[in-house]
Amino acid sequence: MTDVAIGVDVGGTKALALIVARDGRVLGELQAPTPHAHDDGAGTATAKVLTELINELCARHALDSHEVPVGVGLPGLMRRDGRLAFAPNLRTASGADLGTLLGESLSSSIVFCENDANCAALAEHEWGAGRGIDDFVMVTLGTGIGGGVVADGKLVRGRSGFAGEIGHMVVVARGVACPCGGHGCWERYASGGGLHRLTREAAIEGRLPTLVAQSGSAASVRAEDVTAAAAHGLDEAVMLLKEVGWWLALGLANLAAILDCGHFVIGGGLSSASDLVLPSAREYLADLVEGYSARPAITITSSMFGPRSGAMGAGLVAFERNT
Amino acid sequence: MTDVAIGVDVGGTKALALIVARDGRVLGELQAPTPHAHDDGAGTATAKVLTELINELCARHALDSHEVPVGVGLPGLMRRDGRLAFAPNLRTASGADLGTLLGESLSSSIVFCENDANCAALAEHEWGAGRGIDDFVMVTLGTGIGGGVVADGKLVRGRSGFAGEIGHMVVVARGVACPCGGHGCWERYASGGGLHRLTREAAIEGRLPTLVAQSGSAASVRAEDVTAAAAHGLDEAVMLLKEVGWWLALGLANLAAILDCGHFVIGGGLSSASDLVLPSAREYLADLVEGYSARPAITITSSMFGPRSGAMGAGLVAFERNT
Repeated sequence: MTDVAIGVDVGGTKALALIVARDGRVLGELQAPTPHAHDDGAGTATAKVLTELINELCARHALDSHEVPVGVGLPGLMRRDGRLAFAPNLRTASGADLGTLLGESLSSSIVFCENDANCAALAEHEWGAGRGIDDFVMVTLGTGIGGGVVADGKLVRGRSGFAGEIGHMVVVARGVACPCGGHGCWERYASGGGLHRLTREAAIEGRLPTLVAQSGSAASVRAEDVTAAAAHGLDEAVMLLKEVGWWLALGLANLAAILDCGHFVIGGGLSSASDLVLPSAREYLADLVEGYSARPAITITSSMFGPRSGAMGAGLVAFERNT
Repeated sequence: MTDVAIGVDVGGTKALALIVARDGRVLGELQAPTPHAHDDGAGTATAKVLTELINELCARHALDSHEVPVGVGLPGLMRRDGRLAFAPNLRTASGADLGTLLGESLSSSIVFCENDANCAALAEHEWGAGRGIDDFVMVTLGTGIGGGVVADGKLVRGRSGFAGEIGHMVVVARGVACPCGGHGCWERYASGGGLHRLTREAAIEGRLPTLVAQSGSAASVRAEDVTAAAAHGLDEAVMLLKEVGWWLALGLANLAAILDCGHFVIGGGLSSASDLVLPSAREYLADLVEGYSARPAITITSSMFGPRSGAMGAGLVAFERNT
């Protein structure tokens, strides 16, 4: 049992590494851009960046990277043996045996990989917004939507460890194409990527006249412009974020029907827009959940650790598996 | 510990009662039509029919209905205390405290209620097509779609015991209206009710010319006609059942993404059409599951006990809770 662990969260744009104490305190932090060169497809570039990141963080805090347990959270179908079987939002590492690659390059036998949203769910369950709650779903809104399902107090892993791929639940049969190869996946409507797409659509359809005028053309209005304008109360932007809230509520309603979870913890990169999206999601949820009035209240809260939950949970995974 | 239990499955059209032995053998059987008079809404009529059914079955087999444990499977949101909180497909008993009503009318303290599809899942897990499988979903295709989720070897009940309402997962945002009050629920596309609706649509749209000619008008073509004609190889009917298979696969793919279950057991009243629907569901599943090729094979089989699984599982619930 060590005092600290390294937790790394590998996102679509950056990797965040933390030094985490057993009680959840964060003692150190470093980040690096996620590589996007489609050079080998075997995850070598990703493993190299992560190795450098972890070594640098250890060096700064006088830790020995061979001895400190390392947990890594990755987006996609993460096998229990450390192979990232399929990662539509991290193509460069899709299929890679990152557990082995990292273990070799760090000369360490205590490297553990897990799905990133599962990590976030574990962190929130242990220390954060899911503490003491037996049935909840962690929903991470980033480029896509990740999920970690906690049922009866335990993380649902499924047969191969792939459970929680909630972003690829189809909510519009034959809908918008998704990088996963499917159509109409929830994450095409309610994630950061979904907001981006809805922004472009709304701009073209004339539903964002002020923002289009400001930015010069429909094509140049960005999701960030919508979020910023909505924060200042611009009606057309507020309406668009309400639409995202509706789509978010739709998927949450599906999960509530399937799992009877009473609580949702929302995290990930889009959580900056949470203050604007979550109130409308709460409002719409009542209309969208089957038998809503027959159920106890269903609550939606923001993640307690924001963009850090994934890396914190990866640290927790390292603690728990390093026995 | 008794030798036998009574298991009752209350469906939208009939209630089936079985005498079940601890090893799963069925020693007696009786059924009665489910009452549909909207007289009181408190379940009195349903409780009366079930009481008579159970008493008659006991009388025929020389059992004392006060002493034999009784399990009852009901469609909808079944609370752990025996109250049927919400039942869109059994309006006459929606909201009723059936556990108490039945206990009183049977003068028995050993009456246990559970969601019908959860019962079916338990029976298939204990004795049938889910035996030895840790992660599977029981899918009952009847008037609607019921579900029982088994994760890591245990039935997922959720916070209030409502888990497994998979039929009300929305797969077409703002789609067809559902008796639950929602729109675009999976069961509007892939259940018996879904086949009925698709049949009517296809007949009106001219996609069932032979069947329309045979029955005299588009309005008079029934779902049963489609099933029968498909069994005889009529192309237009086969195509329609393939469509049902596609919709079935779509919902299964969602469940596989969320839960990483490797197996589905299909039961319920529509399972008579299973031989025609399941092969196409299996075929479409490969296109619809995220990262299908990165996963071990996902299997779909018919329930081992067909329309009896619910009542058998209700008997199992009676055995397990009567301790």
